[in-house]
Amino acid sequence: MTKFNETRLNKLRQSIVDNKLDFAYISDFKTIQYLTTFGSNPYERILAMIVFADHDPFIFAPALEIEVVKSSGWPYDLYGYQDNEDGLQMIYDHIKERVANPKRIATEQGNLTLARFSRLHDNFPEADYSFDLTPIVEHQRLIKDADEIAKLDQAGKDADLAFAAGFKALKAGKTELQIAAELEFATKNRNVTEMSFGTLVQTAEHAADPHGETSDLPLKDNALVLFDLGTVYKGYISDASRTVALGQPTDHMREVHEVVLQAQLAAQAAVKPGVTAVSIDKIARDIITKAGFGQYFIHRLGHGMGMSEHEYPSIMAGNDLILEPGMCFSIEPGVYIPGDLGVRIEDCIHVTADGCLPFTHMDKKLQLF
Amino acid sequence: MTKFNETRLNKLRQSIVDNKLDFAYISDFKTIQYLTTFGSNPYERILAMIVFADHDPFIFAPALEIEVVKSSGWPYDLYGYQDNEDGLQMIYDHIKERVANPKRIATEQGNLTLARFSRLHDNFPEADYSFDLTPIVEHQRLIKDADEIAKLDQAGKDADLAFAAGFKALKAGKTELQIAAELEFATKNRNVTEMSFGTLVQTAEHAADPHGETSDLPLKDNALVLFDLGTVYKGYISDASRTVALGQPTDHMREVHEVVLQAQLAAQAAVKPGVTAVSIDKIARDIITKAGFGQYFIHRLGHGMGMSEHEYPSIMAGNDLILEPGMCFSIEPGVYIPGDLGVRIEDCIHVTADGCLPFTHMDKKLQLF
Repeated sequence: MTKFNETRLNKLRQSIVDNKLDFAYISDFKTIQYLTTFGSNPYERILAMIVFADHDPFIFAPALEIEVVKSSGWPYDLYGYQDNEDGLQMIYDHIKERVANPKRIATEQGNLTLARFSRLHDNFPEADYSFDLTPIVEHQRLIKDADEIAKLDQAGKDADLAFAAGFKALKAGKTELQIAAELEFATKNRNVTEMSFGTLVQTAEHAADPHGETSDLPLKDNALVLFDLGTVYKGYISDASRTVALGQPTDHMREVHEVVLQAQLAAQAAVKPGVTAVSIDKIARDIITKAGFGQYFIHRLGHGMGMSEHEYPSIMAGNDLILEPGMCFSIEPGVYIPGDLGVRIEDCIHVTADGCLPFTHMDKKLQLF
Repeated sequence: MTKFNETRLNKLRQSIVDNKLDFAYISDFKTIQYLTTFGSNPYERILAMIVFADHDPFIFAPALEIEVVKSSGWPYDLYGYQDNEDGLQMIYDHIKERVANPKRIATEQGNLTLARFSRLHDNFPEADYSFDLTPIVEHQRLIKDADEIAKLDQAGKDADLAFAAGFKALKAGKTELQIAAELEFATKNRNVTEMSFGTLVQTAEHAADPHGETSDLPLKDNALVLFDLGTVYKGYISDASRTVALGQPTDHMREVHEVVLQAQLAAQAAVKPGVTAVSIDKIARDIITKAGFGQYFIHRLGHGMGMSEHEYPSIMAGNDLILEPGMCFSIEPGVYIPGDLGVRIEDCIHVTADGCLPFTHMDKKLQLF
């Protein structure tokens, strides 16, 4: 396990000092994972990290997580609670031991629920809560460091091997689920602990639903098959899509695939520091629109990724964000024609000093099986 | 797919009328799934359902989900938005078309984030937001109807077969991950679309970490192996644990297993309408404590379940909730001795008119492989 990374915490603490905050109440387990390498979804339980301007931070976690936090190398105070205790009140009491009358408290407004905020507010009714930590954390997480890129690279390699296993399993008559099961079996047998999301395998017109699920539909001969998959490596994910053909694709299938491929390649080739997110989306969208399929490209070009596939930056119309080295996101144009077919081709990349590099390398040309 | 269930929505709408609310802003996708059968985690995107006292409800969803919502049989208004649009503002505008000046607005305070609440408040600054919909929804979801029990039963059957596949794969030297992969492969080949969580397989002393993960540790001979797994059937889950032995268990292993088994059986036998959640926890805990292992039983006895394993009721000290027919929860005592072993035995059950019935039926006695 990678050990606790003081650099990230120090940077966050500096923001707290600079903004004259007494402390930050961190409620998002992904933020805690980013800052400590200890990451665990607490669901309805309570996991929090309090970062003070003038005191050492502490972590508050369910009792059954305490040993795991310790083993991550966390060097500061650590408190556990049992399921039948009032964990939230315990957190406030631990805060009061350090800061009796906080004036300014930062919260993750994009994560903290109204119910939990109310209790915090009840305990510190005089404090100013206007400062939102969410954009600070998002900005810090936006630029991946070398350690993060290395993990994403490994996850990408695992995804490439998962594609290979999935393609090898392809056979008309097998169900989408069977292909996904064989792919995941081969992947987990290579010591990949988990997929980052349920593997998507969609055949023929079923692939026209970009949010559909892998089903018991049998694969058709002379049709396309869409794969979307990802793996997890030490808390970092891969996420990639390929669309391949079983048997002989029609000219129409070949045409749609080629348009999506050209859009994907052009967008990926255009990524470099200094250009905007929206401009990358536009390059792909213009190619698809010019080919007459614009109405069937019904989602943004890409999403940020790292510890999950739901990070910033969003590569879409309206996002004027200027790309910088270390940003990581997907480039995944798609064409979904209802009742006919669906094609998506996706690599996730990281922005480099003068361009970008993908995490996955599986051939993107139309492969026939 | 099960179609839209008007009964559940009508019941919720009645709460809104009874409490003199103008509308409820539903932000939790699980609540929407419960009310409509359409369920999809929107992550950073926006999915909301607005239920009015005096108007028909509407659903607001990402554009790429619209067809799926339609196919669920949703008979009322449905609005989509593209990634580059201000979805939240569009929701408020749709609300204003129906209610210009709402006086009382209910939100799911246990789900709605501070950031999204702020925007709602900015749009309806005069409204009273004190009403919390979370307990109303939780209470409604607490008592499962016959349709839900039938789905949970099927998920339980799938879990039983998953155990069988996992046990069949057991062999000293294979890794925990390999066993989990074989188990999931067999399960998905039987058209189970997804596991409800990553299958847990832990060998020997590794099982002493109740929140550890399936790893590349090889299975040891003459040691225990802990399985915790679940499947999903039409949006409803199973969740069960068994601890079995590879080779010949020691007397100590047999003793711990027997204590946990007696605790599990006694608690399950005591479940019936009219008793409290805490009393069930106490029955199991007393048995384990009396046997001298109380300090190693470090979590609550059980959690509610249904559409996820994170529902009410929590079966633990301090919860005086009186059990009623239709409540569903896990009974999962465990003993975790650091550096030695871990044993957990779990069935999820539903409370019946005079007792309870488990969803899983795999033998709970110490099985040897």
